[in-house]
Amino acid sequence: MARDPKRKVLVLHGPNLNMLGTREPEIYGSDSLPDIDRSLHALAKELGVSVECRQSNHEGDLIDWVHAALTQHEGILINPGGLTHTSVALRDAITAAGKPTVEVHLSNIHKREEFRHRSLLSAVCVGCVVGFGSDSYRLGLRALVGSLSRGK
Amino acid sequence: MARDPKRKVLVLHGPNLNMLGTREPEIYGSDSLPDIDRSLHALAKELGVSVECRQSNHEGDLIDWVHAALTQHEGILINPGGLTHTSVALRDAITAAGKPTVEVHLSNIHKREEFRHRSLLSAVCVGCVVGFGSDSYRLGLRALVGSLSRGK
Amino acid sequence: MARDPKRKVLVLHGPNLNMLGTREPEIYGSDSLPDIDRSLHALAKELGVSVECRQSNHEGDLIDWVHAALTQHEGILINPGGLTHTSVALRDAITAAGKPTVEVHLSNIHKREEFRHRSLLSAVCVGCVVGFGSDSYRLGLRALVGSLSRGK
Amino acid sequence: MARDPKRKVLVLHGPNLNMLGTREPEIYGSDSLPDIDRSLHALAKELGVSVECRQSNHEGDLIDWVHAALTQHEGILINPGGLTHTSVALRDAITAAGKPTVEVHLSNIHKREEFRHRSLLSAVCVGCVVGFGSDSYRLGLRALVGSLSRGK
Amino acid sequence: MARDPKRKVLVLHGPNLNMLGTREPEIYGSDSLPDIDRSLHALAKELGVSVECRQSNHEGDLIDWVHAALTQHEGILINPGGLTHTSVALRDAITAAGKPTVEVHLSNIHKREEFRHRSLLSAVCVGCVVGFGSDSYRLGLRALVGSLSRGK
Amino acid sequence: MARDPKRKVLVLHGPNLNMLGTREPEIYGSDSLPDIDRSLHALAKELGVSVECRQSNHEGDLIDWVHAALTQHEGILINPGGLTHTSVALRDAITAAGKPTVEVHLSNIHKREEFRHRSLLSAVCVGCVVGFGSDSYRLGLRALVGSLSRGK
Amino acid sequence: MARDPKRKVLVLHGPNLNMLGTREPEIYGSDSLPDIDRSLHALAKELGVSVECRQSNHEGDLIDWVHAALTQHEGILINPGGLTHTSVALRDAITAAGKPTVEVHLSNIHKREEFRHRSLLSAVCVGCVVGFGSDSYRLGLRALVGSLSRGK
Amino acid sequence: MARDPKRKVLVLHGPNLNMLGTREPEIYGSDSLPDIDRSLHALAKELGVSVECRQSNHEGDLIDWVHAALTQHEGILINPGGLTHTSVALRDAITAAGKPTVEVHLSNIHKREEFRHRSLLSAVCVGCVVGFGSDSYRLGLRALVGSLSRGK
Amino acid sequence: MARDPKRKVLVLHGPNLNMLGTREPEIYGSDSLPDIDRSLHALAKELGVSVECRQSNHEGDLIDWVHAALTQHEGILINPGGLTHTSVALRDAITAAGKPTVEVHLSNIHKREEFRHRSLLSAVCVGCVVGFGSDSYRLGLRALVGSLSRGK
Amino acid sequence: MARDPKRKVLVLHGPNLNMLGTREPEIYGSDSLPDIDRSLHALAKELGVSVECRQSNHEGDLIDWVHAALTQHEGILINPGGLTHTSVALRDAITAAGKPTVEVHLSNIHKREEFRHRSLLSAVCVGCVVGFGSDSYRLGLRALVGSLSRGK
Amino acid sequence: MARDPKRKVLVLHGPNLNMLGTREPEIYGSDSLPDIDRSLHALAKELGVSVECRQSNHEGDLIDWVHAALTQHEGILINPGGLTHTSVALRDAITAAGKPTVEVHLSNIHKREEFRHRSLLSAVCVGCVVGFGSDSYRLGLRALVGSLSRGK
Amino acid sequence: MARDPKRKVLVLHGPNLNMLGTREPEIYGSDSLPDIDRSLHALAKELGVSVECRQSNHEGDLIDWVHAALTQHEGILINPGGLTHTSVALRDAITAAGKPTVEVHLSNIHKREEFRHRSLLSAVCVGCVVGFGSDSYRLGLRALVGSLSRGK
Repeated sequence: MARDPKRKVLVLHGPNLNMLGTREPEIYGSDSLPDIDRSLHALAKELGVSVECRQSNHEGDLIDWVHAALTQHEGILINPGGLTHTSVALRDAITAAGKPTVEVHLSNIHKREEFRHRSLLSAVCVGCVVGFGSDSYRLGLRALVGSLSRGK
Repeated sequence: MARDPKRKVLVLHGPNLNMLGTREPEIYGSDSLPDIDRSLHALAKELGVSVECRQSNHEGDLIDWVHAALTQHEGILINPGGLTHTSVALRDAITAAGKPTVEVHLSNIHKREEFRHRSLLSAVCVGCVVGFGSDSYRLGLRALVGSLSRGK
Repeated sequence: MARDPKRKVLVLHGPNLNMLGTREPEIYGSDSLPDIDRSLHALAKELGVSVECRQSNHEGDLIDWVHAALTQHEGILINPGGLTHTSVALRDAITAAGKPTVEVHLSNIHKREEFRHRSLLSAVCVGCVVGFGSDSYRLGLRALVGSLSRGK
Repeated sequence: MARDPKRKVLVLHGPNLNMLGTREPEIYGSDSLPDIDRSLHALAKELGVSVECRQSNHEGDLIDWVHAALTQHEGILINPGGLTHTSVALRDAITAAGKPTVEVHLSNIHKREEFRHRSLLSAVCVGCVVGFGSDSYRLGLRALVGSLSRGK
Repeated sequence: MARDPKRKVLVLHGPNLNMLGTREPEIYGSDSLPDIDRSLHALAKELGVSVECRQSNHEGDLIDWVHAALTQHEGILINPGGLTHTSVALRDAITAAGKPTVEVHLSNIHKREEFRHRSLLSAVCVGCVVGFGSDSYRLGLRALVGSLSRGK
Repeated sequence: MARDPKRKVLVLHGPNLNMLGTREPEIYGSDSLPDIDRSLHALAKELGVSVECRQSNHEGDLIDWVHAALTQHEGILINPGGLTHTSVALRDAITAAGKPTVEVHLSNIHKREEFRHRSLLSAVCVGCVVGFGSDSYRLGLRALVGSLSRGK
Repeated sequence: MARDPKRKVLVLHGPNLNMLGTREPEIYGSDSLPDIDRSLHALAKELGVSVECRQSNHEGDLIDWVHAALTQHEGILINPGGLTHTSVALRDAITAAGKPTVEVHLSNIHKREEFRHRSLLSAVCVGCVVGFGSDSYRLGLRALVGSLSRGK
Repeated sequence: MARDPKRKVLVLHGPNLNMLGTREPEIYGSDSLPDIDRSLHALAKELGVSVECRQSNHEGDLIDWVHAALTQHEGILINPGGLTHTSVALRDAITAAGKPTVEVHLSNIHKREEFRHRSLLSAVCVGCVVGFGSDSYRLGLRALVGSLSRGK
Repeated sequence: MARDPKRKVLVLHGPNLNMLGTREPEIYGSDSLPDIDRSLHALAKELGVSVECRQSNHEGDLIDWVHAALTQHEGILINPGGLTHTSVALRDAITAAGKPTVEVHLSNIHKREEFRHRSLLSAVCVGCVVGFGSDSYRLGLRALVGSLSRGK
Repeated sequence: MARDPKRKVLVLHGPNLNMLGTREPEIYGSDSLPDIDRSLHALAKELGVSVECRQSNHEGDLIDWVHAALTQHEGILINPGGLTHTSVALRDAITAAGKPTVEVHLSNIHKREEFRHRSLLSAVCVGCVVGFGSDSYRLGLRALVGSLSRGK
Repeated sequence: MARDPKRKVLVLHGPNLNMLGTREPEIYGSDSLPDIDRSLHALAKELGVSVECRQSNHEGDLIDWVHAALTQHEGILINPGGLTHTSVALRDAITAAGKPTVEVHLSNIHKREEFRHRSLLSAVCVGCVVGFGSDSYRLGLRALVGSLSRGK
Repeated sequence: MARDPKRKVLVLHGPNLNMLGTREPEIYGSDSLPDIDRSLHALAKELGVSVECRQSNHEGDLIDWVHAALTQHEGILINPGGLTHTSVALRDAITAAGKPTVEVHLSNIHKREEFRHRSLLSAVCVGCVVGFGSDSYRLGLRALVGSLSRGK
């Protein structure tokens, strides 16, 4: 299937990730969201893809953007924040868009409250990367690009 | 109570229903949302009511619209999508608006994942129609109009 | 596959439905079972099908009748009454007969006791119509006929 | 409200109670079912009522008989046997008949397997008498007659 | 085994039963506790036993009295009130005293809140009588005397 | 213990087993019920016992037949079908009859829906044979005869 | 309804609250119980009511005092301590007394062990104030007086 | 730490609270939201603080506003409505903002449906005030100001 | 830290332990409570401490005594009897007193009813000794004295 | 597919089965493991297959042996002992080897402790034979050979 | 029963106990495993028994050693480490060996993660000693020797 | 802290991973374990570390190796296979060794059976990488090296 030279990846940051670097650095690290986005652009270049990064505290925005990926992106890298554990609608959006999606988390959700141990999204993603601070995003991008390359 | 000749019904489509017809036809059928809305307008005419159809991926929009029904509509036909299983706020909105409401689902949610078997909305609706593809909407409209006619 | 001009639908009423109209009209409505059967015959005529209606308080009778549908009917419309929540055997019968089946309930079971929220049958039916009094039967018949027409 | 001099009470024995006296006397006592029925007739005479006793291993028979009580009896005394824990349909029948009903058990079900601790019927009965061997029936009849006398 | 002519039965009323007749007559009836005790003394006479009645809102008092029954009474009739669902210590006291014990409840606990459906005491009692207002006590006394007579 | 030359074994087929061979061969195999009964008669001959085979979709019939085994058979081989997971009454019948009973299933119930993983009957049977298609019956008959021979 | 000028409020402190100020100030604050009572008397004066304060480590004492409120007080302010999570008897006492009752807690019980998250009393109280140290009592008194003023 | 003379408090009203006074007064009281806001402004003046009140049916708006409090307010008073029981994202926002937060509810959520008994927010708030109608807001404001004064 | 030569240990026996030696020796052994107390005094002497032993069937008494230990004892040895599984108030008392506490049980609670497997007290004790009859007390005293010697 | 004339079956005995015949004969029977192995060799001969029998108390050994079956055996007969209920790794080994496997148990695990009712292995085996003492092995071998013959 | 002068006790240390003293002294104390073994040999001498100590990280080794105790030891003292909560096989080994066994834990498992609160072994041991650091072993040895002396 | 130029990382493969590439490639991919190890050596070189790779089907071996890492490696990369969900002992070993550990899985365990959704190890690891086939290992190694570099 003929394609334009650069694969486009959509990076989505869910609720509260705009606060990164400001508060609770012991849980989420000291990198701000712009820092993370910059590092993703740099890594994307290295991997031969392009990334587009967006953040919203509105579930509906994230769903709208996931839908848009259907025609505009090759894959999705998502940190769903607190919606991880509660949003069937976001899960359905990922299924509806049908694009390979990788779930990432800054903190190790398995070390935290019981209600954070279950992700409603994991089962519709290719896989997930959890607990490595902002490295989780970069590892997730590598994972996604690897997955796109294998065509799966 | 004197009324204008045509009862107005609000039709609400929840998250991801804008994607209908595009993806997963084996679950949701091949009708697009405009197709469904057209068929509802046609049926409404036949039943002597009018329908107004809206879709949003934002829970807040749906709640705002349900509130507006308090003064503008006689009843509500809603496919809450993924919010079915998670939104107490939407449930409370239906209770607050106090209009007869019918819940519909395209797919048979009882054949799907465990977490889709419970609806938070059913208990505040008149009833529900589940599993008949786009027919669910039309059957739901008939059910709602019947319910309005019986004044209950 | 050659067929006689009229599709035959089996309508089954489970335990206690013979009491309809006599008791608890605030839950089940004031229509008697013969009233409902008459209205189904009328609607069937309109939809170009024929219906055969039976009631029993014996799970075994219902199972026998479902089996017989294998050779005698195109589809089944069933209100399983209290067996809805307890009968694996009736569920297996529906699967064994392999005919499109629609489940209906007069009352909105989701507004009632916790143990009425789960149906063992829903997952082997095409879909279900719940909560519209005797309208549930007529909507269910429409749903079934629609399903038969689509060959599914 | 004018009445014929003798109140009629329906006594129902559920599945396996026909085996009484033959097996497991350490759990159920050594009285046979005819022994119990005889003692109930004697007590009924003393209390100024009449009793009619029936046993079946078929849930459907019990439901049919409960329905018949609507026009033929003042109250019901029932030992539902194993159906106690599983029959929503029998529960619905008691509600549909709307006659004061007393539930009795020979053995103390709370000393036995976990699944015997919950009765689906208790919540629709006036009350229950549990664990006194065949005395449970006679105490239950007294309880029922007392309840009928108080018009509740 | 030689015995003095009158069997002595201990009647225990648990927490809040001193309020009987004053409040919530729709749940507990209009008889006061002295009314009930009087009726028990009368019935005891008829049955050839004597009763001693005590009430306390203190779990410890009830336990002390159950212990005393070891040497002073033949059997115990107890309405444990709210302790029914929470007191392992009272259960252990009944086991330790080793006297035939009958549990009674004025209201039908199975019609009330979920947490009232489980009794910690039932499994160490001969049996229980539930839901017949103050009749429960009199039926319970008959049950206990019957049980004592059968030497079990 | 002196015995007549041929042990009689009762073979019971529960609900829906009359449909065997007709539907869902991928789950239940292609043997019909008469095929299975014939093979059991043949094997019985080889093992020096006789078998009597019955099927019903009525729980009450099965209970009646289990009771009759008390005086007419040495042991019971039962495939309870969907009643496996729901019938306390059938369990009680097996206990009441007191005959060595072997439970068999054609399909491997542990590979199927969650609610099929629990059998209410297993705990009152000698043992069970699960998952070998119609072989399950023949292995079950061998198991039962072995058990009868060991007098247990 | 004519009343004496000062409403009387009963303030009850449950088990272990006599230890306040002595131990675990990081959870319960450094105010002693007499400090709290003094501040309640002062606030009561300001609000035009009078308070009577009692503490006991005995559930039975608390129940006795709640009963006495029936004739002596207008409302109850209670910190049930550890009984919050375990005492059905105290709950029943509050219902029996039938006086408006406000539940207060010094610590935020929702931040503590799982078993402290459920209160058996909340459902029979007007409302509750949780987590503000000794302020909880004063806010609770205001809430109770407000509730009494509104006659609810 | 030098500060401007008036502490600013953010008051947030979650989904459906815009409907106050219009519907279900038996649950939520007859005060409208503007009534409540006016009374909060009046009380704030008395307590020497200022309040800013906002309502939204959109979870994302509430999260945005909580974030803004980081630089603009000293504390937050929130009635999260139906999001109380479902929003991990709102909980995370409160943690991220790191401002003392008080949770209030008009109705006593412990008297209502089971799913309303658990609050996801309580564990990250200072405390909560539940069940006193619109008084809950005013008590909550007092509680918050007290908490700010104690520097905790 | 200077100390008086003999450490004082408080030994508390909960509900029903006054019955020891009288009933159920197969579970609790044949030693009476005075026997146990005598053996504890003897062992205390050997270990260079003194013990003070008390029993009550009243939770409130045990709480009062635990409080008193704050100023009068170095540590607590407690057999909480049936309160083990139900008393949050006793747990809070132990925390409030802040003295090293050792929990002992005569019987192996893990071999008994399910509800005896969980102890509410264990998590606030140094440790526990379970199942060695009256030896449990003596081993517990050794454990407590060892713990006091290590200053922990 | 060309094969050597005799099918080879691997028989695996899990932890503690080396103790057979020595201890708890009332549960496991009096046959020793060598007795069972001898009887399996005899039966294998009759059925035209060969068996190789191994026992280990080490989960890892069993996994190694299951792997080896991939190239050396046609099917596996396994009594996993206590690993039945706990070993995901052994389950995965059976899946990885991909050989038809039959699970057997000497005792009827459904009559024993709750935790023995669930088998992690059953869902990846052809079927299971439970409760017939050492007959279970021989019936299991027959079942396996039958399954191999049907090529399934 | 004649015996050789010294009772032999097997001491088993489960997984990770070889690491004692090296890591996490705040949980497990600073004694190394050889320290503990030396202290057990010393105490054994004092108590007139001999001990043999072994450690393994392999469940299978522990099972093998428990089996060997059948002929070589009088009793077993075991700290099963992490296998406490997961090994049915080790439990079965203890039952199979049939020797009095005492379970010990260094840390108070009830203060740790939820999954450590349940022991699969306790119900087949004489009793357990939990939470006293290395003292737990010495107390456990005393308990075991006491138990052996009482012949139970 | 001075170190030798190359960090050493221990790579552990749990049960059944020796079968990789041979079976179930649709779940685990077609790379064999030696393929994966080779790719890890190559990547390690690139990242400036060295890796040592080991596989075992024995939990005890894995525990022994984790212990050895205490003195020989800087960090651990582990795919625990089926032990992920069942081994408290392996979890304790990781805690005892105290080395940064990264958990990896080839398949997305959240898409598989319910019992695979919970990992006992995640909470004691730095983080985890799940679902990217053999890429999971390489991403995990990058994650671990990143973590070591940040000294965390």
